[in-house]
Amino acid sequence: MSFSDLPTPSIILDWHKLVQNCGKMSKLATEHGVRLRPHLKTAKCGQVARLATEGHFGGLTVSTVAEARYFAENGFRDLTYAVGIAPSKVDDLHAIQTAFDAKIGLILDSSDAAIAVAERASAIGAKFSVFIEIDTGAGRGGVSPTDRSLLEIGEAIASRPHLRPAGVLTHAGHSYLARSPEEMRTIAADERSGAVLAADRLRSHGLQCEQVSIGSTPTVLNSDGFDGVTEIRPGVYTFFDIDQASLGVCQVSDIACTVLATVIGHNRRSGHILIDAGALALSKDLSPAKFRTDVQFGLISYADSSEPIPGLSLTSLHQEHGLISSSSGVPPYDRMPIGSRVRVFPNHVCLTVAPYEKYFVAKNKEVMAIWDKARGW
Amino acid sequence: MSFSDLPTPSIILDWHKLVQNCGKMSKLATEHGVRLRPHLKTAKCGQVARLATEGHFGGLTVSTVAEARYFAENGFRDLTYAVGIAPSKVDDLHAIQTAFDAKIGLILDSSDAAIAVAERASAIGAKFSVFIEIDTGAGRGGVSPTDRSLLEIGEAIASRPHLRPAGVLTHAGHSYLARSPEEMRTIAADERSGAVLAADRLRSHGLQCEQVSIGSTPTVLNSDGFDGVTEIRPGVYTFFDIDQASLGVCQVSDIACTVLATVIGHNRRSGHILIDAGALALSKDLSPAKFRTDVQFGLISYADSSEPIPGLSLTSLHQEHGLISSSSGVPPYDRMPIGSRVRVFPNHVCLTVAPYEKYFVAKNKEVMAIWDKARGW
Repeated sequence: MSFSDLPTPSIILDWHKLVQNCGKMSKLATEHGVRLRPHLKTAKCGQVARLATEGHFGGLTVSTVAEARYFAENGFRDLTYAVGIAPSKVDDLHAIQTAFDAKIGLILDSSDAAIAVAERASAIGAKFSVFIEIDTGAGRGGVSPTDRSLLEIGEAIASRPHLRPAGVLTHAGHSYLARSPEEMRTIAADERSGAVLAADRLRSHGLQCEQVSIGSTPTVLNSDGFDGVTEIRPGVYTFFDIDQASLGVCQVSDIACTVLATVIGHNRRSGHILIDAGALALSKDLSPAKFRTDVQFGLISYADSSEPIPGLSLTSLHQEHGLISSSSGVPPYDRMPIGSRVRVFPNHVCLTVAPYEKYFVAKNKEVMAIWDKARGW
Repeated sequence: MSFSDLPTPSIILDWHKLVQNCGKMSKLATEHGVRLRPHLKTAKCGQVARLATEGHFGGLTVSTVAEARYFAENGFRDLTYAVGIAPSKVDDLHAIQTAFDAKIGLILDSSDAAIAVAERASAIGAKFSVFIEIDTGAGRGGVSPTDRSLLEIGEAIASRPHLRPAGVLTHAGHSYLARSPEEMRTIAADERSGAVLAADRLRSHGLQCEQVSIGSTPTVLNSDGFDGVTEIRPGVYTFFDIDQASLGVCQVSDIACTVLATVIGHNRRSGHILIDAGALALSKDLSPAKFRTDVQFGLISYADSSEPIPGLSLTSLHQEHGLISSSSGVPPYDRMPIGSRVRVFPNHVCLTVAPYEKYFVAKNKEVMAIWDKARGW
């Protein structure tokens, strides 16, 4: 099957790049002696999870109950649900643990949450490993490593028989906003030292803290070391995207995931080539706009190329329409006739691929496999 | 079933508001003597389509092949696929026509597209009604009403036995950018007059042009009249959203669709309440930012209220996290304890609901039905 046989919009995964991206991270984890628990919220795909965990212990990170169920069905038995746990999700996660003999780790950042989860777990006879989420600067979830409440949360977990203290976990999401490799290294250092400090405080207080889990793709790839860290959880490195390339974390040529689209119109008055990939097929994420003004909603290549065409970008997205513009004012109408195919390099691949049902996996421009994936919640 | 029993994130449809919204548009179409072919790209739901077409001829507008298939399966036999047709979609649409004895109208805006579609249709024995798409100012798809090529396209369609000329079709999508009711009325007038002019030119040239199909929710609701128009295709009016309310097209109290979410954390250092509805559950659409600065990624109400809480909004979205902030600097932690429920009023509801599998339909805060829907492509 070649690209011209595929429906559009579709996601194409480049097998060689995917293997290369997974291999590099795998090697990094092995060399540094840390467990690799890749975040599969990006790919949501069992085959990608198998590639990413090859040679490692097989643990995954997930961000929805649907992903937890899907990966348990796909044979993954050690999952961390790395979004602050809502007590109302305990029943579903317990059902998955039971049905698949799986172990799902939870995260929380308050005694209130620990108590509420423990009560629900106790009511239904569930048992969960629990990580304390640490805020190492992102300002999203998590307790500060130096906060007094850290020890109270540790005690709240330790004293409840339906919860098992698993350790501490942090995600330096603000690394996505770093303006330079130096800034990223600083954030990586803060992520590591904050998590280690929190773990040390818990241990000094006589509380168990086996795992020290950190990670985002930018910090893991810009870290000066992993002292005290037991586990890393990067995710977007499997595919990479324009945002990561703009951050300097990868090259555009490392991007393993593109959206195949069909040219459906030329509007010469407004200077646009129209494609059948719009806001739903790509997401309206504008992350790279922090770093460069030429990307807008995504970059474009011809279908048979993996090099974005200089000067072309998606300047407008409607629900099912994408509008390609050229910095020259005139996009290449003749090279992109109606019915021809192009590929879009996505800004933020996690959001782009989420609603798709499957991936078309290509080796040297031939589709060699179709992989299923999770979606929804 | 009450809201506290639902999984999160989930979509809640308010039955009374939905019926009211559909009823008003239905009445408008009847009073003006135009056919109502609602755009179901917003709701993607058979039950909503039944409500929206009650008392009308039952035609729908769709924007994906998946929607065409879903609505044909749900008994709708007269569909317009209102995205410029790619020849590669002809086979799938023909299969749907055949399997369900349905009629799917296509749109195109060039002779090249007409020739390519006719060739494919001829090769597989398909026949399609075809609308010529007219650009009445939006600058997306469509040929200008005054363009010489309009007649060439009309001839290209008329001369091909596998295509049936159906008329002209336009969508004044730039109405979403109008700054005042006056501007919207001007755009509505341009939409109508442009479509009518195109139809007149075709007819004067001896070409058949039965339907003159126009419409967006803002222009239909701000039109001074529908002379020469045979059909309207609004869509977002079924649900409405913050963008439409910001445009002045509806009141916030008309919004029939909200996202139910659970509070999963309090970050008092950064001043945020965290919920389990993020970029995937809401979309990163920022349309209302054109009109008001207080909305950001969406407005928030308590679960049992349908009034947004003044000063609260979603200021940051991560993949599965939403961060609520208060203009006062301190969001209502005590009124939103961990595990409690809130509702998000979406910015652009078409994008928000797209990835969900189903709707929870509520009458007076009790869930009375679960409706399925289409998703994907």
